[in-house]
Amino acid sequence: MSEPKKVRTRERMLASAADLLSTTGSGGVTIDRVLRESGAPRGSVYHHFPDGRAEMVTGAVALASEAMISMLTAVAEQATPQECLDYLVAFWKNRLETSDFTLGCPIVGATIDDGSVPGLHELVAGTFDQWHRLIAESLTGSGVAEARARTLATVIMAATEGAIVLSRAARSTAPLDDVSLELRQSLDAAVAAA
Amino acid sequence: MSEPKKVRTRERMLASAADLLSTTGSGGVTIDRVLRESGAPRGSVYHHFPDGRAEMVTGAVALASEAMISMLTAVAEQATPQECLDYLVAFWKNRLETSDFTLGCPIVGATIDDGSVPGLHELVAGTFDQWHRLIAESLTGSGVAEARARTLATVIMAATEGAIVLSRAARSTAPLDDVSLELRQSLDAAVAAA
Repeated sequence: MSEPKKVRTRERMLASAADLLSTTGSGGVTIDRVLRESGAPRGSVYHHFPDGRAEMVTGAVALASEAMISMLTAVAEQATPQECLDYLVAFWKNRLETSDFTLGCPIVGATIDDGSVPGLHELVAGTFDQWHRLIAESLTGSGVAEARARTLATVIMAATEGAIVLSRAARSTAPLDDVSLELRQSLDAAVAAA
Repeated sequence: MSEPKKVRTRERMLASAADLLSTTGSGGVTIDRVLRESGAPRGSVYHHFPDGRAEMVTGAVALASEAMISMLTAVAEQATPQECLDYLVAFWKNRLETSDFTLGCPIVGATIDDGSVPGLHELVAGTFDQWHRLIAESLTGSGVAEARARTLATVIMAATEGAIVLSRAARSTAPLDDVSLELRQSLDAAVAAA
């Protein structure tokens, strides 16, 4: 019984750290706040994160990155790029609405960073690269030429991430809806031209 | 001589606070850091910002907001929406490149916030609203119908802000270039259909 419980404590702490990254950026992820949010006992910090705060922040980015990659991979396997976009937008709308617009994207939060966590910048850049590759592959899989797929994947990521920030500020998912509508048109045109 | 010097000190402190907002979010804007970055004497905090840190953060958002509004208004008066977009993208590319990709958008930084500054959220929402209105007006001024101008203005803001984050992560302005290319096509189509 002890191993699953340990895993759960570690994952609960990382999930809290990822939420704090979303809300406040990396500077807001402190050991005290993670303990408070996750309800984990203080001893678990040194047990699960012997390198302390930095390990907690990078672990949270890795967890959030892998969760998105699993989701994108699973959806892209059985859906058109347009359906992938709908799924992605619905995911972010739900996250914003169920958190009273406090939770945005943890990887964007990790980009807003003062450089206090070694290796964080490379991890963030690598995460965005992987997400970008998955979206571009979904487009080339629908016959879109490689160069156009790469540009369009950048726009999908940029516009979605930007709309999450605007939606958070407006406490309304209208920016995400507007962006989704426009991106849908670009996707339809790119796939039709393929 | 004393009034201009006082104004300069206050503006220098606010400019430092706005840069810190861009880099680290609102949590990274502390009185000590602003003093260190601006080189202002400690006594100037209580002189210029009697309400302390919160007043410094909201003042920095107001300064950054007004600077962008002045720029957008001046450019929109004598340029097409496409030229405005080029100007905006060039401005952000220059800011990223000359800061070694540490300075993004201070208003996005202010959105990544833990709620410790009263009124900050409303100020951020109001700023995005004003920017949005200016961009939408530039589009309707070129004959684009109002509903389409509003949606397109949201996409321009979201994609540009998102691309600034991606460019910062990639330490490259390629995401901004890609987004600029795609937005240009949408703008051309919208203006041509007008």
